Amino acid sequence: MTWRAKVVYNLVWSLGAPEPCFAQEGTIKYTILFKPEDKRVEVPSGSLIQDAALEAGVEINMPCGGQGRCGRCAVIVEEGEVRRRSALRLSAQEVEEGWALACQTVIESDLVVTIPPQERIERRIPTAKVAAKIALPFPYDWRQDQAIQNCFVSVEPPSLDDNTDDFSRLKRALTKEHGIRGLVADLPLLRKLGAVLREADWQVTTVLELDTWASPEGPPRLVDILPGDKTATSWGVAVDIGTTSNVVYLVDLLSGEVRDMAIDYNGQIARGEDIISRIIYASEDDGLRELQELVVGTINKLLKRVCGRQGIKSSEIYKMVVAGNSTMIHLFLAIPPESIRLEPYVTATNHPLPVRAREIGIDINPEATIDCLPGVGSYMGADITAGIASSGLCESKKLTLFMDIGTNGEIVLGDCDWLISCACSAGPAFEGAGVEHGMRATAGAIEEVWINSQTLEPTYRVIGNGSPRGLCGSALISLLAEMFITGIVDKRGRVRKDLDTPRVRGGEHGWEYVVAWGTETAHGGDIAITQVDIENVIRAKAAIHAGYSVLSKSLDVEISQIEEFLIAGAFGQYLNVERAIQIGLLPDLPWEKFKFLGNTSVRGAYMALLSRQARQEIAQIAQMMTYMELSADNRFTQEFVSALFLPHTQIEEYPSVMALLEEQG
Amino acid sequence: MTWRAKVVYNLVWSLGAPEPCFAQEGTIKYTILFKPEDKRVEVPSGSLIQDAALEAGVEINMPCGGQGRCGRCAVIVEEGEVRRRSALRLSAQEVEEGWALACQTVIESDLVVTIPPQERIERRIPTAKVAAKIALPFPYDWRQDQAIQNCFVSVEPPSLDDNTDDFSRLKRALTKEHGIRGLVADLPLLRKLGAVLREADWQVTTVLELDTWASPEGPPRLVDILPGDKTATSWGVAVDIGTTSNVVYLVDLLSGEVRDMAIDYNGQIARGEDIISRIIYASEDDGLRELQELVVGTINKLLKRVCGRQGIKSSEIYKMVVAGNSTMIHLFLAIPPESIRLEPYVTATNHPLPVRAREIGIDINPEATIDCLPGVGSYMGADITAGIASSGLCESKKLTLFMDIGTNGEIVLGDCDWLISCACSAGPAFEGAGVEHGMRATAGAIEEVWINSQTLEPTYRVIGNGSPRGLCGSALISLLAEMFITGIVDKRGRVRKDLDTPRVRGGEHGWEYVVAWGTETAHGGDIAITQVDIENVIRAKAAIHAGYSVLSKSLDVEISQIEEFLIAGAFGQYLNVERAIQIGLLPDLPWEKFKFLGNTSVRGAYMALLSRQARQEIAQIAQMMTYMELSADNRFTQEFVSALFLPHTQIEEYPSVMALLEEQG
Repeated sequence: MTWRAKVVYNLVWSLGAPEPCFAQEGTIKYTILFKPEDKRVEVPSGSLIQDAALEAGVEINMPCGGQGRCGRCAVIVEEGEVRRRSALRLSAQEVEEGWALACQTVIESDLVVTIPPQERIERRIPTAKVAAKIALPFPYDWRQDQAIQNCFVSVEPPSLDDNTDDFSRLKRALTKEHGIRGLVADLPLLRKLGAVLREADWQVTTVLELDTWASPEGPPRLVDILPGDKTATSWGVAVDIGTTSNVVYLVDLLSGEVRDMAIDYNGQIARGEDIISRIIYASEDDGLRELQELVVGTINKLLKRVCGRQGIKSSEIYKMVVAGNSTMIHLFLAIPPESIRLEPYVTATNHPLPVRAREIGIDINPEATIDCLPGVGSYMGADITAGIASSGLCESKKLTLFMDIGTNGEIVLGDCDWLISCACSAGPAFEGAGVEHGMRATAGAIEEVWINSQTLEPTYRVIGNGSPRGLCGSALISLLAEMFITGIVDKRGRVRKDLDTPRVRGGEHGWEYVVAWGTETAHGGDIAITQVDIENVIRAKAAIHAGYSVLSKSLDVEISQIEEFLIAGAFGQYLNVERAIQIGLLPDLPWEKFKFLGNTSVRGAYMALLSRQARQEIAQIAQMMTYMELSADNRFTQEFVSALFLPHTQIEEYPSVMALLEEQG
Repeated sequence: MTWRAKVVYNLVWSLGAPEPCFAQEGTIKYTILFKPEDKRVEVPSGSLIQDAALEAGVEINMPCGGQGRCGRCAVIVEEGEVRRRSALRLSAQEVEEGWALACQTVIESDLVVTIPPQERIERRIPTAKVAAKIALPFPYDWRQDQAIQNCFVSVEPPSLDDNTDDFSRLKRALTKEHGIRGLVADLPLLRKLGAVLREADWQVTTVLELDTWASPEGPPRLVDILPGDKTATSWGVAVDIGTTSNVVYLVDLLSGEVRDMAIDYNGQIARGEDIISRIIYASEDDGLRELQELVVGTINKLLKRVCGRQGIKSSEIYKMVVAGNSTMIHLFLAIPPESIRLEPYVTATNHPLPVRAREIGIDINPEATIDCLPGVGSYMGADITAGIASSGLCESKKLTLFMDIGTNGEIVLGDCDWLISCACSAGPAFEGAGVEHGMRATAGAIEEVWINSQTLEPTYRVIGNGSPRGLCGSALISLLAEMFITGIVDKRGRVRKDLDTPRVRGGEHGWEYVVAWGTETAHGGDIAITQVDIENVIRAKAAIHAGYSVLSKSLDVEISQIEEFLIAGAFGQYLNVERAIQIGLLPDLPWEKFKFLGNTSVRGAYMALLSRQARQEIAQIAQMMTYMELSADNRFTQEFVSALFLPHTQIEEYPSVMALLEEQG
């Protein structure tokens, strides 16, 4: 069975449960009873069914990330009143029968809700509810797929007649019992070898790395030697080093399952929010070393967390695969990233060679290999090659566009035969930075806004159910879309000054729209979006739009011919397609073409951790991908300028938006 | 040209000049004029011509180590009186003409001495008079033979049209200009790569290691990258880690020449004189780490010395090859050596894999490979495999016995087709330890003794021309031979108590013979050899004799059939064949069968440093050599007991000694 035939990508892997979020609609509490588990929970009015389910510990699969588009979170409202924001994917009859999308349905009374069996998720690992949702990416057999092999061997004790050295005896036993030849071992292993063999009465478990991507025909290497039979467990970790967040998957290398995961902010954030400021910081004095220590510290903290929860020692982790953008990989390895930000934007290396954990201070087995996945260039890193691999794009005959939106938007267009890519700097607006009241998508961030087209009064949802503190990226998109649809801004994004509402006003930094008054907020100040903020958001969406437009035009492909539109990344995960189309960030295509994949980077790392072939495939992706440098491309500038309108200069390409505007008058 | 055909071993490599030694015959000074250089020097009467030549800075080749056997140090005494102790290799006519062996000729008046041209050594490197004598072991072409290659490359600078990463650009340039493919580099190199390329305007010298013995088909590795063209020099070091002394050869990898050498005591001596006490020390607390630091410290000190003299930076040294016995190699790598001293005497590994200098703290380029040569077992180490390689034994069709005498005697018998070996513990007597007035062969040690057979009064030579402080190993052999020949001891080694001399007396520890009265010595005490000392020396020589007897008998070979008798090691270098035969340490064979090779271990390391094929040959030697474990061999015990006589139970096997005894009456 070939690799391509064997891989069955599961596009609906769930990325894990978001924190419960509660609407700010009032303080009335309703009681929700979930069946068949008979779990009861009390939530404020205005909450979504998904929030109540999370609060109750009832898990519901939400592959589309709660966008109301996949229909997989459908539940039956047996009793009580609800308001369906969207019933996409549900037929009229189903709505009649009480079906509702948990992610789109607001609770308006006490409820009895039944979770249909197919949507209930087995809690295989009670302590790792999040990780339990991550499916195996392909059929997995560790004996075939895994480079890490734990082999128990009975080594023949030496005698005067046979006084071969310890290491040769071990090699002989491995050849005899497991057919493994040519073993090599680094000094730390040779130093402990004799003692372990004798303590264990010559019955030992060897942890071997059969090969690495850098030397697939290289000799097997002894990673560890343990007394007795320790073949029952074997652990690895997959890591995504994002500029903002770092994610660790703890993986059982025997079953292939993700047994736990942990996520936290990259400790480098305090030294610069974006890549460029980190690169500048790294070039100063001891900056590079400091940035490395910070990210290594973050990863070690996450490792400690998952190891603690699963009751394993960090030394039992025998392999780590890392994905991340090229700057993050450079900083992780303490390779100076200076040239990444200077024309002509080259990295020191796009294909770092495997290193040992002890070389960079990662708290796993010191002899474990850390394999940083290969990227394509300075702005097309291993996060994207890993993402492409985990998205299944390379297995597909469909013309597919893959994009990862963040400070930089990376865009890949292709299918199983070819890949072309570009990167465009969207600026930090989508990450809530460079915006008057912007913030990251953490507790207290307004994440969605609705504006009443008559009163121009807003309603909003806050992450974590507290008082609002600012606007995160998705709120900015939501807000701009609503302001455009309700006519608060014109198609150039200019705030109309003639509106009869106190929400629109001349502020310190020009005209602005007030989303929350100081009386409602956590800090007592108003939260508003300013004209400058709007222009930042428009520039960001225009850059992304220009990126995929140039890619498709350079290939003479109409955007409408694109069959799948894959959106990766944490930001993409919470993106509302409708709103994104309304501002022209996404093209006006049928919603089913869009797929939200969440963190594809860590899942690509996870695949590479499991399978040597998957690892090779990522190397092939890095090799086959053509990268278009847009910084000196006139077409990009033209497309960018055309996209500085809402939704676009050529509004006829946005029929659904035109229809809505007409409807709104 | 095959490897075997190509290798032309030079058995007369000189090991380097010993310190000048002056006889203790008086304080009269004589002036010696050396021609044609017209160098004048004043020395005490009784000095040898070789001592005067060394003092004058006139170099004379002494391949046999000053034993009067090779005849290579022949000079012409034009004017003055000398006493020829030996004129071996000189015809009667030559003696008539004034020829004399510099190593055997005592100065008895002012002299005019001419050094014949063929014996004068060119001082190629003025600061390295010692190393200048070490000949290339075989025709050497660094492009063919050397794994370390310095390649200058012009790397194409990146542009927006070609923004491949730095490392790939370097690889591309190496492939294009030098045909080198698949380069790999460790993190420290990737970290400096970008800066060096840009500082050097993309004109760089790469230092590559094309392969190592452990992975002859492995990828070439980047060891260093330097700005500009630095291909004019390339340095390596060959090291011998002896239990007592450490030697470093600084080697020009382009010419293959030894450019300097340095020697010093192994810093571990303070933690135990012999292997066993070091192993015990290593098993205590922090002992292993401490012993490693001591030997690494010694080697670093020697490196500093040669680098300082040659004006090179330690980071310019790109490879180190190390020979040494198995315990020394274990301690050098900080691998616990415990199992070496416990039955069944196994090492952790006989074939350590190459390590990087930074892993063990050796002050050469941190990325340089340190290659510890392979041994055969616990008591047949890399010092012997390297020694065999450098001795040329494996190229010879002659039945050859190789022995390295020290605390342990390692003995190898074989030819180009087979090798059999054994080790026997001689005890520390030959190294001056475990002996009442024993000491190492340093300044103040009596190294040779003559006893007047009439008066039983001794004459002796002291290393370094000072007052005597004790007896070194060669003095013990010399003394025992003289005492036996003059009848002071009987054939069992028992001191005769009926002799009419104050030199023989009952001392604190039994009967003894006084070599130097307190009035002559440095410390004011008498220096004597005791009955116990004599027994120690006899046991030591009996062990060595038993070793080669068992080896030859197990192969049904008469000792007289052995065509060459190669004696390696620092101790062997100063061994007087005649005396060694008289006590039965060596068999009574024609003197021309004995060859003294000096430190073959460091020379084997030097060969392996120069040539990948030589390195492979040493691995083959380690593999093909059969090792006989004598500790449980009855034949050894029998032979040992038979050899506890002077010269041996079967005195008929020592015809020359029988003749001498008859002559002495």
